[in-house]
Formats: sequence, structure tokens, C-alpha cells
Amino acid sequence: MKYSQLFGKTLRTTPHEYRARSHALLIQGGFIRPLGQGLFSFLPLGIQVLEKIKQVVREELNALGGQEVQVPLVNPMDIWNKSGRSQFIGRDMVRFEDRTGKKLVLSPTSEEAMVELSQLSLKSYRDLPVFLYQFQIKFRDEEKVRCGLVRAKEFLMNDGYSFHRSYSDLNNFFPKIFAAYEKIFERCNIPFLTAEAGVGYIGGSKAYEFLMPVDYGDDLVLTCDACGYRANREVAVGIKDHPAGNPLPMEEVETPGIVTMDELSAFLKVRKTSLAKTMVYRLRDGFVMAVVRGDYDVSIEKLSRFLEKQVIRLAHEEELTELGLNPGYLSPVGIDPPVPVIADDTVANSPNLVFGGNREGYHYINVNFGRDFETEHVGDIVSLRGDNRCIQCGELLQEIRAMELGNIFKMGDIYTRDMGLVFKDDNDRYVYPSMGSYGIGIGRLMAAVVEGNSDDKGIIWPPHLSPYAVFLMGIGRSFKVDRIVDKIYETMPSSILCDDRKESPGVKFKDADLIGIPLRIVVSAKHLADEKVELHDRKTEETWLIPITTIKDVLKVWQ
Amino acid sequence: MKYSQLFGKTLRTTPHEYRARSHALLIQGGFIRPLGQGLFSFLPLGIQVLEKIKQVVREELNALGGQEVQVPLVNPMDIWNKSGRSQFIGRDMVRFEDRTGKKLVLSPTSEEAMVELSQLSLKSYRDLPVFLYQFQIKFRDEEKVRCGLVRAKEFLMNDGYSFHRSYSDLNNFFPKIFAAYEKIFERCNIPFLTAEAGVGYIGGSKAYEFLMPVDYGDDLVLTCDACGYRANREVAVGIKDHPAGNPLPMEEVETPGIVTMDELSAFLKVRKTSLAKTMVYRLRDGFVMAVVRGDYDVSIEKLSRFLEKQVIRLAHEEELTELGLNPGYLSPVGIDPPVPVIADDTVANSPNLVFGGNREGYHYINVNFGRDFETEHVGDIVSLRGDNRCIQCGELLQEIRAMELGNIFKMGDIYTRDMGLVFKDDNDRYVYPSMGSYGIGIGRLMAAVVEGNSDDKGIIWPPHLSPYAVFLMGIGRSFKVDRIVDKIYETMPSSILCDDRKESPGVKFKDADLIGIPLRIVVSAKHLADEKVELHDRKTEETWLIPITTIKDVLKVWQ
Repeated sequence: MKYSQLFGKTLRTTPHEYRARSHALLIQGGFIRPLGQGLFSFLPLGIQVLEKIKQVVREELNALGGQEVQVPLVNPMDIWNKSGRSQFIGRDMVRFEDRTGKKLVLSPTSEEAMVELSQLSLKSYRDLPVFLYQFQIKFRDEEKVRCGLVRAKEFLMNDGYSFHRSYSDLNNFFPKIFAAYEKIFERCNIPFLTAEAGVGYIGGSKAYEFLMPVDYGDDLVLTCDACGYRANREVAVGIKDHPAGNPLPMEEVETPGIVTMDELSAFLKVRKTSLAKTMVYRLRDGFVMAVVRGDYDVSIEKLSRFLEKQVIRLAHEEELTELGLNPGYLSPVGIDPPVPVIADDTVANSPNLVFGGNREGYHYINVNFGRDFETEHVGDIVSLRGDNRCIQCGELLQEIRAMELGNIFKMGDIYTRDMGLVFKDDNDRYVYPSMGSYGIGIGRLMAAVVEGNSDDKGIIWPPHLSPYAVFLMGIGRSFKVDRIVDKIYETMPSSILCDDRKESPGVKFKDADLIGIPLRIVVSAKHLADEKVELHDRKTEETWLIPITTIKDVLKVWQ
Repeated sequence: MKYSQLFGKTLRTTPHEYRARSHALLIQGGFIRPLGQGLFSFLPLGIQVLEKIKQVVREELNALGGQEVQVPLVNPMDIWNKSGRSQFIGRDMVRFEDRTGKKLVLSPTSEEAMVELSQLSLKSYRDLPVFLYQFQIKFRDEEKVRCGLVRAKEFLMNDGYSFHRSYSDLNNFFPKIFAAYEKIFERCNIPFLTAEAGVGYIGGSKAYEFLMPVDYGDDLVLTCDACGYRANREVAVGIKDHPAGNPLPMEEVETPGIVTMDELSAFLKVRKTSLAKTMVYRLRDGFVMAVVRGDYDVSIEKLSRFLEKQVIRLAHEEELTELGLNPGYLSPVGIDPPVPVIADDTVANSPNLVFGGNREGYHYINVNFGRDFETEHVGDIVSLRGDNRCIQCGELLQEIRAMELGNIFKMGDIYTRDMGLVFKDDNDRYVYPSMGSYGIGIGRLMAAVVEGNSDDKGIIWPPHLSPYAVFLMGIGRSFKVDRIVDKIYETMPSSILCDDRKESPGVKFKDADLIGIPLRIVVSAKHLADEKVELHDRKTEETWLIPITTIKDVLKVWQ
């Protein structure tokens, strides 16, 4: 491709306000352009990289026996009702009606459609296992959109779905997909880490995520340097400290207008470790009250796991009132709670806590678990922090900010049961296949490649992901230079980006660095005098001269 | 690929109720499955064919200098307001709001997004011309969904957009894209015809369509066998007959409750050629009244062209009332019409017509143009029929029912002007680039390939579109047969679909015919005794024996 002909060239001005380097470099280099909030167009260079990334993913998934399919982005709402997810996926999922009033959604993920497809395509138990994947657009009306391709509303996703005869078969498949994902990120030359993760609205029993450490990441991973423990903050377990102290007599105190933890801490002059925080959550059926210590936050993920039920959202104020609870002064103390109560172990083990008074303007102080109130369950339901210690080895955990690159979920038979995908096994027993679900955002992966492969001057594409193998340019206005440039170009025009513009060498070098093609060939009158041309390695910045006669061999190797 | 492993096999039962052969064969053969109304999933075999069709399209467009890009499916409504199209595209285009209340649409086509992308990517007049294309999902909430991939709501489209320095440059590009489209359909082995077409909501001055004759087609093409004239019914021109007769005196007659053409024809005992039909249409600014003879229908396309303004829709009853018109008895006779009036030439040339009386329950009879009323304009604004004669040679036109495969539009600068894409030319004059737009539905093209390449037994894929090059099967339970089958399979497993099931030869032959891979290799104990295997050509049904030793050479040729 001649650069003069290429649609979408480099931009001279650095886009300010971009927090992610990948965002700025992909726009500046001529790979993407914005169309609207969280909406991006791909320029020809961007399409080339996308296709190469897709090919890497395809190869690794095919190696596991993956078969490429495609289900529609638009789904009938019916199938989301069947699985029950329409209830607890919020505004992320766009819902609309067609002209006949039929309810449709823009699917944020494709578990339902894949179960339907399997329903129409698998004939028997013996057709299992099967591993399907697709490259398909997703639209998620995310609350926060930022950093370009890192978090867009519309994005290309590679999502895979496997169906197995049993949960143990799914378990056996899991390390394979885990390894395939590792290989994909390795082939993309991305520094990544893996961590146990929450399942979110995908559901299921277990999830792992693959993350890349970046300071603007949305995820916080807790890691232990000593033993290697790693988990997303929302599911990480660890040792929580409990203050010592003798139980004092419980008292009711006046706390007029004091509702937040900060106000309460200041008003009573106690640290947050001496406060208790009570929250009520909506479940698919009913509510649950969760009590944690004031210095921790409830982890919806841990709470859902503990309950073995999906927590949908915080209860609304009206719902609390209907339950006979006082929204500003919630607590399980002094009343017979109208809903099940779960206390975090920090609450059970900390003496003399402050609790809501269950009436306007009052709190209880010196509340002690077991003596002043009890709960049906005690468990670990809080998100940890960097000051917690590792549950495996006792060392202090570290917090690492990261962005998620991919996710794998072990779901079991929750979807196949809810949606009625069932087969008879060899013993004539009904079996609901066990299902796993696996996803990588392809656009985000492209951003991650840039984050992991760039310097102050621009991008440094890993050779097999580069839009072109070679960046070719001539220096100086010489007929001979032009002729040699053309000759080299014609050896493999589809692998060379040839900067044929009448620009200064400075401009061409700058653009070459920005675009980031790994190998550069520079033809100049000076070296042509010795029948040589210059090669430049974008990554190592090494430069060396080679005889023109050998250029074909060099190109072959680099192609 | 081993057939036993393939996800999505043939279906034994013939789906009834399918009107299009392609619909039934693609489902039966294991290429697609329905997910909902107008929503289809692609199975692995279907994905393979799709990718091959995309490659044919890509090659032909790249040969014209086309560059692949991608714009989002979801567009901000803003850009559709900028072009003005949000006003006159109806329910085809799904509109929704994001969580912040921002208006978005599912774009049914991408002119706006491509102009925006060019705005951000073209730097000067000298960057023109540029020809961009994409493969992107479209969603159109069509009124009628039918025949499987022929008319789906969600579908993969290849849409191209070119920008030129001048209208004459666009004109010069047009024969090239026309030829590229012809080549694409030829390479897909589809019998097609080309015809002048209406521009619909794409707009512009000229459009051509590529159609395939099928009895369930949505389009009616008028063709002249004598001279080769071909145009879609909505824009076709031709000779219209006019009855002779002397003008009689105009009279007002009572026609109580008579409003439709049929009622009027029956009540007055006259043929529809003696009636006049008056319609009022909404334009972007204001209204227009169109008068045609009762035996013809108004062609919105012709009317828009005549006016050089987009006709949006029929006026609503309330709008008519507001204009002081009587909805049931509309006509330009006996009043001073409140909006411009256009008469079809049939009205101007036919004597003694019946017109609405502009008051409840009355019509005028024996109305004669020029004597009893006049209009500002007379033109050709009706859709023709098979009983019209060719305007070029006078022969009777033929009606051919067909489905549209692709469309090319010459739009000029309507979008670039409305959306402000402008450059200074070499003489410092402002130039709005001239734009063309070109589209092929990839899923529909796949259906058309099946329509054009199938027989009673199933599909017959053209070799370069076939999901696999070879269908391989063994007959009989013989260790030697299995071994030879395996050996052949291993020479090129990615090009062979190997039916390794323990099914009867009859079942395997039937499935092979249905799936439609062009070359079949049959290994049997009988022929192995002579060191031979059987080849079968799916299309010609020829069968011949070849020595096993030569199989590698045969495979190379067919691959």
C-alpha cells in the first residue's frame, strides 16, 4: 500500500485529555476514529490489525476443537426471560420493540442465543462436548465509557461457549481454555496476570480473569508476592484484623440527622472499625440484610456466592419502608428483622460496635454480637483491601490496578436447566449439559497490545500483528532512489507500507515511529552509492546496512 | 473436519412452509438456524461459505482501490439529523436512548457515519477520490420478513462509499463499480440482471440494481425483449395508452359513501381508465397533490424525481382537513388547490374523467384537463405495468419478478453538503465531494447462490464458495477402507469434510448431495481391490475411478 493513497493518516496534533496511551496512539497513528461516545470506527490500518488479532484467537481456539459460528446481536427478549436474566441485567442491556410490538434486546453477551442454537443443532448426548465461538459485535450501555477501545459501548468480542456431558468434563476442559487464553495474550506480547474473579451477571460457580496492569484500570487485583495468591478484590479472601476489648453495656444514643458512616464517625469520635454498616439487598425472590464493619464494603459477588442466589441490587427506600425498616438508621439490633440477616465475620468478632437505632435520630453503641443481637449466618461478605493479609501465607496483600482482557466462566447447568436443553444419557437418564463461557474483547485487546508495545515515539507492533510487515521510505529527491523504492515495493506490495509522499525525512521518520511497523527500510542516495540500503528495527532501534541484492531474502524472513 | 464432530448437521425432515428453496436447503443442510423472526444464526458450514463470499467481494473491491474500514452499527441520532434523514426514514430504523438520554439509532445504512469518518480522516481535496467499504451488520425493522436470508432483519452487509472531486469523477467511477458488481455475481455463479432503480431513502440522482429472477421476489422489473430496456417498475418509463373521445359537459353527480376506486367504478359503471385518482403527499417542506388515472398507481420514486424533492409519505387525514381538503373526495377540480398540483400525462390526455367533488358524497364527471382544471405541472409520475409498451422501441414490456442482490447509488453532494464535508480545490474554491454508495447483502447473496446452484437433492456449491473442497466417505465396515479414508483425510484435513459416521451408504450419499460439496471421494472395498477410489462430481453427477496413487494430484487440482 502506498501511504499517499492510504485512507486515514497520522495526526500531527496530540489529542489531549486521553488518559490511556493506547487511545491517543491509535487515533494519532491512523487506526481508529471516534464516532460518538463509546463508538469507534476502524480505519484501514486498524482493520488490518483487528484481522490479525482475530486470526491469533481463531488459531488457538481451533486448536482446542473450537468451531466458529455466529448468533445475532439482536435477540428476542423471550430467550432472556427463559433464562431469567432479563430480570437482573440492568440498563447495560438495551431493550426495544419492533414495529409489531415484539420485544427485542441488543445482547450484551450470547449465552441464551448459544443455548438456543445448540437446542436446534445438537441431536444427542453423544454430540457432546462441543465448543463454539464467534466474533460478534456487542453493545453494552456502560455507565462509564473511557480510554477509547478500553471501554467502548459497541465493540467486537470473541465469545466462546462450551457444552459438556458433566460438570467434571467441564472441569477438565477449563485448564485447556485457560492455557489457550494465556497463549493468546502471550502471542500478543501483553504482560498479563490471572486472577480469580466474580461472575457478575454471567452467573455460575467460578470465574477467572486475565488482566493487564494499567493505572487507569477498572479492576483492583489483590496479590500476594510471597505465595502467588491472586484474586479480584470483589472475591479475594484474606485475614481481617479484629480489635480486642471487653464488652461494655449497650446504650441508645441520640444522633440527630446523622446517617453516613463519615458523619457518625465524626459525631461519636470513633474510628470506622467501631461502626457497623447495614445494607438491604433485593434478591430474585425477597430481600437479605447484610451487616459489615464500617471500614469495609459489601462485596455483591461474595454475598451472592454465600447465598447461592443472585443479588440483584440495593433495596429502594420505598421497599425498606414497606418492610417496616428505617432507611437512615437500619440495623438488626433491637428488632425482629423482617428479612434474613447475614453478618460479616468482622462484625461477629469486633466488640462494642455502633449500630443504627431503627428509629429516626438514634443509634446503639457498644453492641456485641451474640449478646445484643444474633444473625442466622456469619460469613465473609466484604471486599478486601491492600491492608489485609494473605489467607494462605499471612503476608500483606498488594493492590494492583488492572484492566480486564478476558474472562472465563464455569457456569454448570444453570442455563441449560432454565432453558430446557436436555439429553438422555446412555443410561436413559436426563442430563442437562454443563456449560462454560469465555470472552475476549478484540478492540480492548488491540488497545492492550498498544499499551504493552509502545514508547514515547509511538507504537511498536509485534511482527505478526503489524498491519504491514515493512515500512519503506526513500530519502531525497533522486530518480535512482525512487526507482529502487518502487522495485522493492513491487516485490510484495501487500506486505509493505510505502511512504511515497514528498515529505521531509524528519516527517517520514516521525510517522514511521508513530505507526509502529516493526521493520523499516530506508533507501537513500548516500547508501545506494555503495549498493546498500538501511534497515531499522523499530523495537531495538538498531540500524544496519545490507546489500540491495540481499533484500529479497531479508523480506522473506521478515514477512 | 470430521463430520461426526461438526456442529450442526443435516436435518432429515424437510421444513415445510418455506417458500424459498434456499431457505429450506440452508436449514436442512446445516448452514443456518433461526433464532427469531428475521434473525438467523450461522453454523460452522455457513460461516465457511460466508467467509468465502466475503473474500470474493473483497477481492473485486480491492481491485478498484477499495479500502476496508468499519463504522459502528449504533450511530448517534445527531448525524442522522445533520443529514436530515432521521425525518424521512420510518420504522425501518430502530431508535433508542442510552442511560443518559442520548439518542441513538441502529443504522440501517452508513452514509452518515462514513461522511463523519471522512471528515476526521481526509485532509485535503488531494486525498480524493477515495473508495471505502465495510462488512458490517445492519438491522432494519422491515415490515415483511421472509424466505430466510432473503429478507432478514439483522444481516451482514457489504456497503461501499466513494468520495470524488466532482460529479463527473463520480460518473467515471460508476461503470467500474458496475463492472465489479457484475464480476462478483458472475463469480458466485448467479444468473442476474441489471435494471435502473429507485433511490429510496438513500437519495441521489441515479441508481441501478442487480437482481436475480425468482418467483417470490419483492421487485418487479419491466424489460423489453426487443431492445433490452430494463428498469424497476417504480422508475420504468414507457408508452401509456390514452382513450380517444370528445369532451362532454362537466357535471357534478351524487356518489353517497363512495370513496374507493372500485366502488366508484362499480357505482358509475365506468372502467378505471375513466377515473382520476388524487393523492396528497408530505414533502420535507409542505405538501404536493398528485393526480393520476385510476388504472395507475403513483410512483413515489418518479414523483420525487420530478419534484427534485424527497416525498416522505402520504398526508394524514388531519393534515388534509387542516389544508381545507375533503379526504374522501379529494381533487383539484372546482377549487383553488392549497398546494402545488402535478398531473400524470395520462390525466392530461384522457377525456371525460371522473374526479372527486371536494365535498362529501359528490364527484364530477366528464372532467377535461385544460378546460375544467389546470395544473402547474404535467409529467410521468406513475408505476408502469406489463401492458405498457417500451419507450425505446414500442414493443410490449415484460414483467419479471426478482429479488434485489445489490444496489449502486449515484448521490452527488447531497450528504456532503448537508453534513458539511468540504474542501478547497486548487483554485481555492470550496468543493463538496460527490458521493456514491454501493451495497450487497452478504446473507442474501448466500441465499441467491443456493437458489442458482441447487437441484432436487440439495445444494451444488460453486467450488470456490464451497465450505470444503472435498466430501470424503467410506463404504462398508472394512479396516482397509477406514485406513485409506484416514490417509486421504490427513493429506489436507482443513479442505476435506470426512463423513466418518457409522451410517449406511444411502444416508451418507443423501447428506452429501444435500450439503453440496462439489467433489466427492468414495472409498469402497470393491474398488480398493483394484487399488482405486471413486470420484463423483456433484454437479454433472459424473463418476469415475482413479488409482489411489494419483489421489494427491487430483486433490491439488480441486483444492
